[in-house]
Amino acid sequence: MSIPKTQKGVYFETNGGTLTYGDIPVPTPKPNEILINVKYSGVCHTDLHAWKGDWPLDTKLPLVGGHEGAGVVVAKGSEVKNFEIGDYAGIKWLNGSCQSCEFCEKSYEANCPSADLSGYTHDGSFQQYATADAVQAAHISQGTDLAEIAPILCAGVTVYKALKTADLEAGQWVAISGAGGGLGTLAVQYAKALGLRVLAIDGGEDKGELVKSLGAEVFVDFTKSKDIVADIQKATNGGPHGVINVSVSEKAIEQSTEYVRSVGTVVLVGLPAGAVARAQVFGAVVKSVSIKGSYVGNRADTREAIDFFERGLVKSPIKIVGLSELPKVYELMEQGKILGRYVLDTSK
Amino acid sequence: MSIPKTQKGVYFETNGGTLTYGDIPVPTPKPNEILINVKYSGVCHTDLHAWKGDWPLDTKLPLVGGHEGAGVVVAKGSEVKNFEIGDYAGIKWLNGSCQSCEFCEKSYEANCPSADLSGYTHDGSFQQYATADAVQAAHISQGTDLAEIAPILCAGVTVYKALKTADLEAGQWVAISGAGGGLGTLAVQYAKALGLRVLAIDGGEDKGELVKSLGAEVFVDFTKSKDIVADIQKATNGGPHGVINVSVSEKAIEQSTEYVRSVGTVVLVGLPAGAVARAQVFGAVVKSVSIKGSYVGNRADTREAIDFFERGLVKSPIKIVGLSELPKVYELMEQGKILGRYVLDTSK
Amino acid sequence: MSIPKTQKGVYFETNGGTLTYGDIPVPTPKPNEILINVKYSGVCHTDLHAWKGDWPLDTKLPLVGGHEGAGVVVAKGSEVKNFEIGDYAGIKWLNGSCQSCEFCEKSYEANCPSADLSGYTHDGSFQQYATADAVQAAHISQGTDLAEIAPILCAGVTVYKALKTADLEAGQWVAISGAGGGLGTLAVQYAKALGLRVLAIDGGEDKGELVKSLGAEVFVDFTKSKDIVADIQKATNGGPHGVINVSVSEKAIEQSTEYVRSVGTVVLVGLPAGAVARAQVFGAVVKSVSIKGSYVGNRADTREAIDFFERGLVKSPIKIVGLSELPKVYELMEQGKILGRYVLDTSK
Amino acid sequence: MSIPKTQKGVYFETNGGTLTYGDIPVPTPKPNEILINVKYSGVCHTDLHAWKGDWPLDTKLPLVGGHEGAGVVVAKGSEVKNFEIGDYAGIKWLNGSCQSCEFCEKSYEANCPSADLSGYTHDGSFQQYATADAVQAAHISQGTDLAEIAPILCAGVTVYKALKTADLEAGQWVAISGAGGGLGTLAVQYAKALGLRVLAIDGGEDKGELVKSLGAEVFVDFTKSKDIVADIQKATNGGPHGVINVSVSEKAIEQSTEYVRSVGTVVLVGLPAGAVARAQVFGAVVKSVSIKGSYVGNRADTREAIDFFERGLVKSPIKIVGLSELPKVYELMEQGKILGRYVLDTSK
Repeated sequence: MSIPKTQKGVYFETNGGTLTYGDIPVPTPKPNEILINVKYSGVCHTDLHAWKGDWPLDTKLPLVGGHEGAGVVVAKGSEVKNFEIGDYAGIKWLNGSCQSCEFCEKSYEANCPSADLSGYTHDGSFQQYATADAVQAAHISQGTDLAEIAPILCAGVTVYKALKTADLEAGQWVAISGAGGGLGTLAVQYAKALGLRVLAIDGGEDKGELVKSLGAEVFVDFTKSKDIVADIQKATNGGPHGVINVSVSEKAIEQSTEYVRSVGTVVLVGLPAGAVARAQVFGAVVKSVSIKGSYVGNRADTREAIDFFERGLVKSPIKIVGLSELPKVYELMEQGKILGRYVLDTSK
Repeated sequence: MSIPKTQKGVYFETNGGTLTYGDIPVPTPKPNEILINVKYSGVCHTDLHAWKGDWPLDTKLPLVGGHEGAGVVVAKGSEVKNFEIGDYAGIKWLNGSCQSCEFCEKSYEANCPSADLSGYTHDGSFQQYATADAVQAAHISQGTDLAEIAPILCAGVTVYKALKTADLEAGQWVAISGAGGGLGTLAVQYAKALGLRVLAIDGGEDKGELVKSLGAEVFVDFTKSKDIVADIQKATNGGPHGVINVSVSEKAIEQSTEYVRSVGTVVLVGLPAGAVARAQVFGAVVKSVSIKGSYVGNRADTREAIDFFERGLVKSPIKIVGLSELPKVYELMEQGKILGRYVLDTSK
Repeated sequence: MSIPKTQKGVYFETNGGTLTYGDIPVPTPKPNEILINVKYSGVCHTDLHAWKGDWPLDTKLPLVGGHEGAGVVVAKGSEVKNFEIGDYAGIKWLNGSCQSCEFCEKSYEANCPSADLSGYTHDGSFQQYATADAVQAAHISQGTDLAEIAPILCAGVTVYKALKTADLEAGQWVAISGAGGGLGTLAVQYAKALGLRVLAIDGGEDKGELVKSLGAEVFVDFTKSKDIVADIQKATNGGPHGVINVSVSEKAIEQSTEYVRSVGTVVLVGLPAGAVARAQVFGAVVKSVSIKGSYVGNRADTREAIDFFERGLVKSPIKIVGLSELPKVYELMEQGKILGRYVLDTSK
Repeated sequence: MSIPKTQKGVYFETNGGTLTYGDIPVPTPKPNEILINVKYSGVCHTDLHAWKGDWPLDTKLPLVGGHEGAGVVVAKGSEVKNFEIGDYAGIKWLNGSCQSCEFCEKSYEANCPSADLSGYTHDGSFQQYATADAVQAAHISQGTDLAEIAPILCAGVTVYKALKTADLEAGQWVAISGAGGGLGTLAVQYAKALGLRVLAIDGGEDKGELVKSLGAEVFVDFTKSKDIVADIQKATNGGPHGVINVSVSEKAIEQSTEYVRSVGTVVLVGLPAGAVARAQVFGAVVKSVSIKGSYVGNRADTREAIDFFERGLVKSPIKIVGLSELPKVYELMEQGKILGRYVLDTSK
C-alpha cells in the first residue's frame, strides 16, 4: 500500500482560531503505533470544546481534532503485534496510556495521568492519515460500515460505559435524561440491549416518538410535565434504579438525585465546562443514593460496545458530509441545530 | 422477672418543647417485639435533631427519644423466636421494617419506606423499658459492657457501614474528615480493623494526637493547612481511595470530591438539615469519582460492627451521666462542647 | 369467602409408599402465615425425590408434596401485613425461614439452617388449601394465568438464580447444558432476556429446533459431536463465559469445567442424589475457573423472575392434568418421558 | 554500569536432565524489556515441575529456570518508559503478556493465551542477568532487602491473590489448609493484614506454634483430629467463610468443600500435576458453595502484595544458599525436607 507524504486535514493554530482545511504531512507511526487511513470521522461536542479551549486541560497546538475515526491500517511500528496491514481500526478519545500506572494496571486506563488524547494532545481523526497506539486502537471487523461505526467509537462507548457504571440488572428501570440527542438515542438502544426498561426524558413530541421507536417504554416530556420528579417516580413505580445524565443541565442533574430510586445510581457523563452537580445531603444519605462520574470506556468496554453494534442491536443514525465542511458543522453545533450525528468523509 | 407498670423516662410533647424526666408507663411488646430493660443509652446528634424537629420527616408526639440503647430482654411477644428472656439486646435507629418490600428483600431494610425509627417514630431508649422489633434488635454477647457498647449501636454501625460503602481494599488509603469527633474516632478504629491506611482530618493538635493514638498514619490539620487538597494528595501519593465525610461542612464535602483519588469514592454519612453536596461535573467525570450517601447499617452490618467491638478491636470512649441529665447533654451538644460520647445511665 | 373444613389432596405416609388422593383437613394459618387456595401446582423432579426419600434430609411424614403452587389468598394470620384476602399468591420451595440468622440477614434465606420447605418439611401445594409464611410467599399480579405461572415459582426462579450466579454481562456467551428440558427451556429464555448469547446443549434434532425457536444462537447436539469441548469452544470463540448445568450428568459437568472460557463460571443447579462434580485442579487454576453451586432464589430473585414472566419475556409451556393424576405423572417422570412441565389442576 | 558478555547461571537441556551451573551469555533486552542484574532468586515447587516437565505445557529448552528474582535494572530497551537504570525490579512468573487480548484488557493478564512465563517459556532468574517485559516486571522500592523480597514475587503474590479470590470481608474466617509450609506461612500473614480471622490447618505441634506466632487464632492438627470437618466448623461457629487450599491433597480439597460455610468460597491455588478437585453436587448446591481456581496475581496484585511486605506487615523467612547449590535444593524439595523458602545468591 503506498502512503502519500501529504494529506488533507483540518487544523487550527490557536484555540478558537481559524479552522484550516488544507495539506498537512502524513505522520509516521512510532514503534508502538499504527497508521490508520481514516475513512470517516464522527464530530463530537468534545471536538468543539477542544477547538475553543473551554476546558482546564491544555490542548496540543497546532492541533488536528477528531476522536471518532474509522479506517484501515496502512502501516505499523516495529513493536506492534495486534494489528496487520489491511485490518479495520478505530481511533478513540484515549489514543494511548502509560500501561504501567496503578490505573492502567487495573484497566482504568482512561484515568491514567499520562493519557494521550486524540484530537486534544495527539493529532486526531480530522485528517486522512492518523496514528494511534496499537494497544488502545479499536479493532473493527472486516465488512463493517466505517461511516456508521464512527460515532460508536466515542459516543457509543461513552454511553455504554455510563450504563455499566450505573450497575443495573436486566429488568430494572433506567432513566435517560436527554434521550433524544446524539448520545441519548444511542443510550436508549444500548439500555435495551442490556435488558433494561427505559424511561426517556427530553422535550417535544418528535423526541418522544423517536425514543419510543428505539425502545423506550415511557417518555417524559420536560416541557409539559408539571412535576417531573413525581411523574418519573410514578411511571417507574418508585423511581428508576439508575439515571444516565446525558443532558448537562445543572437543574436536570439535581432533579435526577431526587427522582432516582433508593439505593439507586445517578451517572454523570457529559463534560460541561464549569457545571456543578448538586445533591441534598439529607436525601442522598437517607436514600443511600450514589452519584458517579463516568468517563470514556476502556478497551474492553470499547470491544463490547462495538460488538453490540456489529451484531445489529444498536443503530447509528448519521449524516455524512465532507471533511472540509467541519467549520459548518461546528456552527450548527453551537446553534444547537444538530439532530443525530454528523460524520465526515475524509475524501471530500 | 417482675416488670413494673411505670418507669422513668425523658419525653417531650412538642418539637423543641420541654424535656420532661418523669414517670411514664412501661410499654407492652407486640407479638413480634421484645421488651428491653435499657441499662444505658448513648446520645446522638440525631436525638437533638428529632427533639428540635429539624428534619423533613415528622416525629411521633409525644416522643421518648434515643436509639442507642443496651440492656436485657425482660419480655417477648408470642411470635419472637430469636431472643430469650435474659439475653442482652440493643435498640438501634431502625426499630423495625416491613420485611416485605423490595428494599427489605435485598437487605436494604434501612431504606424501607415503612421503616420504624427508634426515638423518632417509635419511643426510644431514653427510658428504662423500651420495645423493639425482635427481627431488627441487636444481639449482644453476655458479659459485654452495656455502657460502652451503647454508642456502637448507632455511631459505630454507621461509620462501619460508611467504610463498607466506600468499597475499599485493605492497604488502601481512607481519609476521615472530622476524625477527632465521636463518629470520627470510631471511624479511625474501624478503618484500621479493616486493614486500611488512615489519613485523619480535623482541627487542633489535641485532635491530631488523639487520632494518631487510635491508628491514623497521617493527620492533616485544617486550621493550619494552606492547601488542604494538595496536602492530602501528597500525603497519600495521589489522594485517598475513599473519604468518609463525618464532618458535615459543605466546604469540606466539596473539597473531598477534589482530593479523592481517581476512581475513588466520597461517602456522605451525616444528616445535616438543608446541607448540599456539590461537585464539579468535569472533575467528577474525568476522575470517575463516586459520591455515595450511606445511611445506617442493616442487621448484618450491625452484627459485624458489634463483633469488632466485642473482639476488642474498637474502643468506645464514653462519659456516663444519669438519664435525668439529658437536657444538659443537649445543651453541651448545641454549644459544640462535647468530646467523645455521652452515655446515659437509666437508673439515675 | 367460606373456607371448607376438608379438601382434596395427595399425600403419602412413608417415603416411596402409596400416594393417596383423598380428603384431608384444611390447615389453619399461623399468625405469620397466609392460607392459599391453590388453583394449580407444577410438578418438579424434587417432588419425586421427596416422595422416594432420595436425599440426605428427612421429609415430614405424612407429607403432602408440591412447591410450585399458584392460587388466591383466602385467610391470613394476625401478623400478616403484606397480603390481603383475594390477592394472588405463590407457594415456593422455601416456605419460610428464621429471618434472623446470618444467612437470612444477608438475603441468603435459602441457606437458612432452619429453612422450612414446601412439600418437604411443610405440607405443600398438592392440595387445594396450603399455608405459607407470608414473608416468603410470592406475590403474583391479578390477571396472571395461574396455571402457566406455577412452574415459574420453582423452575423459573431456579434457572434465573443460576444465571445470576454465573455473574455474566449482557453480550457474553452462556452455555446451557440440558437446554431442551423443562428447566433448560426456561433457562434459554431467561438468558435471552438478560441480553446473553445462548449456546444450547442437548441431544436430538427436535431439541435443537425447540431451543433455537426460544432464542438459542447455537445448538450443540451431544449425540453427534465428536469433540464437544472443541465444538463448544469454537462456536463461542474461546468458550462460553458461563455454563448452566441443568443436566446432572457427571460427565457433562466435568466437561463444562473444560470448555468454559478462562475466568469463566460453571454453575451447578440440579440436586442429583450422590453425584460428584469433578474438575482438574491444574486446569481450574491456570484458567481461573469458578464452579458455583446455585440453590433456589431468594425473595428478590422470585419477584424478578415473576416480573420477566408477567412482562411476556418468558413463556411457560405446560400440560395440565388433574391433581388426582399425580401418580401417573411421577411414573412418566421416572421413565424420562416428560417433555415440558406438567401442571396439576387441584379441582380435578 | 558495565554489563559483562557472560555470566553464571543454572540451565538444563532436557526435562529432568542435568542441571548445569556454568557460564552462559548475558541476554540482550528487546525494545520492550529491561535487563535485570538478579541478586537473589527464590526457589519454588513450580521450578521443580518445570525442570522435570511434569505439566501439560511444554517448556522452552534449553532452559534457565527461576521466577522469583530480585535485582537491579542495568539496561533497558528503547520503548521502556516505566523503569530507569538503577531501579530495583523483580522477575515474576508472568514475564510478559500480549497486552491486547480480552484477558489482558481486563487485567486478567495471567490468563493471556500468549503469556510468556519466566523459567518456563522465557529464561528466568537462576542466572545473574535476566530480561523481563518492562510492563510486567515488578517495581521494588529502593532500600528493600532483595533476598527477603524474592519469595514475595511469586509465593507472596500467589497467596495474596488467592485470598482476594476468596472475596472475604475483614472479620470473617479463612481456613488455610497447609498453613505451616512456605506458601501457608505467607498466607497466614497476608490474611491477618486483610483483617481476617485465621484457622490454620497442618500437621504437628511445631507447625501449630509457628502459625500461631504468625497470627492464626486457631490451629487444627490433621494428624490428631478425629473429625476434621466437625472440628473446623465448631471452631469457626459454622465453618470458615473461605478456604485457601495451599495443600494440594485431593482429600483435603474435598473436605474443604464440606467444612466451608454456606455461601462460602473454596480456593484452589497449587498446581499439582493430575490432581482432581471433587465436590458433592448436592452439598455444593444446597450450601451455595463456590470453588474457584486462583492463578498468579496480576500487576496490581503484585504491587499490593509487595506493599504489604515493604510496610512490614508480612515477614518472609528465608534460607540463603548459593546459586550453584540449586540441584541440592531440588533434592531436598523432592524429599519434602524444606521448611520455609530457599533463596539463591546469584554471586555464589
